Amino acid sequence: MAKVSVIGAGSWGTALAAVLQKNGNDVTVWSIIKEEVEMLSSKREHLDKLPGVKLSEKIVFTTDLESAVKGMDMLVLAVPSPFIRSTSKNMCPFVSEGQLIVNVAKGIEEDTLMPLPDIIKQEIPQAETAVLSGPSHAEEVGIGLPTTVVAGARKKEIAEYIQSLFMNQSFRVYTSPDMIGIELGAALKNVIALAAGMADGLGYGDNTKAALITRGIKEISRLAIAMGAKAETLSGLSGIGDLIVTCASKHSRNRRAGMLMGQGYSMDAAMKEVKMVVEGVYSAKAAMGLAKKYGVSMPIIEQVNAVLFEDYPVKDAVVNLMLRDKKTEHEDMLWEQE
Amino acid sequence: MAKVSVIGAGSWGTALAAVLQKNGNDVTVWSIIKEEVEMLSSKREHLDKLPGVKLSEKIVFTTDLESAVKGMDMLVLAVPSPFIRSTSKNMCPFVSEGQLIVNVAKGIEEDTLMPLPDIIKQEIPQAETAVLSGPSHAEEVGIGLPTTVVAGARKKEIAEYIQSLFMNQSFRVYTSPDMIGIELGAALKNVIALAAGMADGLGYGDNTKAALITRGIKEISRLAIAMGAKAETLSGLSGIGDLIVTCASKHSRNRRAGMLMGQGYSMDAAMKEVKMVVEGVYSAKAAMGLAKKYGVSMPIIEQVNAVLFEDYPVKDAVVNLMLRDKKTEHEDMLWEQE
Repeated sequence: MAKVSVIGAGSWGTALAAVLQKNGNDVTVWSIIKEEVEMLSSKREHLDKLPGVKLSEKIVFTTDLESAVKGMDMLVLAVPSPFIRSTSKNMCPFVSEGQLIVNVAKGIEEDTLMPLPDIIKQEIPQAETAVLSGPSHAEEVGIGLPTTVVAGARKKEIAEYIQSLFMNQSFRVYTSPDMIGIELGAALKNVIALAAGMADGLGYGDNTKAALITRGIKEISRLAIAMGAKAETLSGLSGIGDLIVTCASKHSRNRRAGMLMGQGYSMDAAMKEVKMVVEGVYSAKAAMGLAKKYGVSMPIIEQVNAVLFEDYPVKDAVVNLMLRDKKTEHEDMLWEQE
Repeated sequence: MAKVSVIGAGSWGTALAAVLQKNGNDVTVWSIIKEEVEMLSSKREHLDKLPGVKLSEKIVFTTDLESAVKGMDMLVLAVPSPFIRSTSKNMCPFVSEGQLIVNVAKGIEEDTLMPLPDIIKQEIPQAETAVLSGPSHAEEVGIGLPTTVVAGARKKEIAEYIQSLFMNQSFRVYTSPDMIGIELGAALKNVIALAAGMADGLGYGDNTKAALITRGIKEISRLAIAMGAKAETLSGLSGIGDLIVTCASKHSRNRRAGMLMGQGYSMDAAMKEVKMVVEGVYSAKAAMGLAKKYGVSMPIIEQVNAVLFEDYPVKDAVVNLMLRDKKTEHEDMLWEQE
């Protein structure tokens, strides 16, 4: 068993801390918010973000980053994506050569278009970075419902080490060398969830939603492959798997915001109604930037951007997608000749 | 525009007839059931199988197979899969050299383990066979909700011809040369839908279902590739897309039967309760036969078979899936070396 810290006490960080503790590891959880640490220490439950999940007395909660980082066998980075760079910068002085940091946040930095592990590596060059992702609502992991995820690392031993710390009877962990594929699937799914929500809001059915999910992962794959990922990863748990969970969920803020826009709300009005950060709005812009940078066609993401930032009518966006040129499903497949 | 016949007046055949007629084709619909033809002719609506969808006065309904087959530019074969062989046999004398038959039924023949287009080709050697499949509830296609499908044929011109007859503003058709991939995705999805239903019945959440869908299509892919299909097809509309629709649907008999078994019903009791043929029960057996024949590992399908035919407890089947050896997600990916 190992000494591990979870950096960030949101719903996902808290749920993962519970899994790691249950597996017999020594677990510390860091949060920058003093009140959050006090609540977690005294109540042994995250009352706002993961209510109903009791946390062991053995978990240590702290606001002291140095003690949370130093000497740990594994650091799980679980702060929201906009805070990855600043948190990494603050962690850097305490991170030792080759210390393992597993990113579980999801997103792309808007200005630089950088995936999160690259940001971590830029701010903490001495760290060994890895990722963990998959179809995993924190609420369900918290109460022990069967869940599968993928641990991605450059080296097999590292991925297997992460697997050995996290895996148990209800939390199944696969390993993969395709860090960039895992990261991009996680980062870009929310744009497709917005589109799926828009279709729901327009009153369209399961056929339309399945089409958006399937064609959505296809265009994410195209981009990810151009950036060095493997196609199989996007067909796997951290790609289509995570996208399915997000688009099916009643809890997804992205899907909900899309739904409101499908019903006629403007982007601003939808954001106000949902009352929380809608990740997909930012990743929509980033995805468009990456599509241009890598010269990849992303028709769904293009239409989502038009709806979000150019007041384009949602219904027309769907018609545009349905009426594009007659296409082959997979451009590279060969036909039989006469 | 073309002269086309739809052979079989179930919900899917009826919905496709409506699409083809709306696009300006001359449409004939054949059914073996005299009462069905009379009802369709007089009411211009399939009251049992596609209620609420009005059918044009221009559609011809008939029980005469010869007139339905002879001289048609395209035949759409839409009878239930157990009747594909006998219907093909009956059609054969009327089919001309190179006449186009598009299979839209889904299944595997239990005794021979043959995919449906192979059966058609065996019974009607002079026919040109093709397939059409994708995430498409007939009920939603009938009322014009946006839907996408794939037309598969050996030759590009044929796939594009099918595309040109079916495609319109709410029914988008892609083309593909991978007939066997399209066919196997369609045929095997119902076994995974049974498994997804079992998970729902056990009270598991979205994480578990997404895992079953994602790992399910992975094992279907493994088998399909061994049988000559392309991986991309199983990641496409007729693979994962159709599986998503089936596993999400409240209407799927397969999912519903699985759910009842998850709640403790035996297979027989569940079948009785659902009151209709549960395709997945037959394809589960066929899939197991194919897995053995092609030497492919299919752990989910194996557990579904154990539950269906060996009274294995559903809960233990899920635990078996979660507790298998620690695995890598995609066996063929290379790791970085020291």
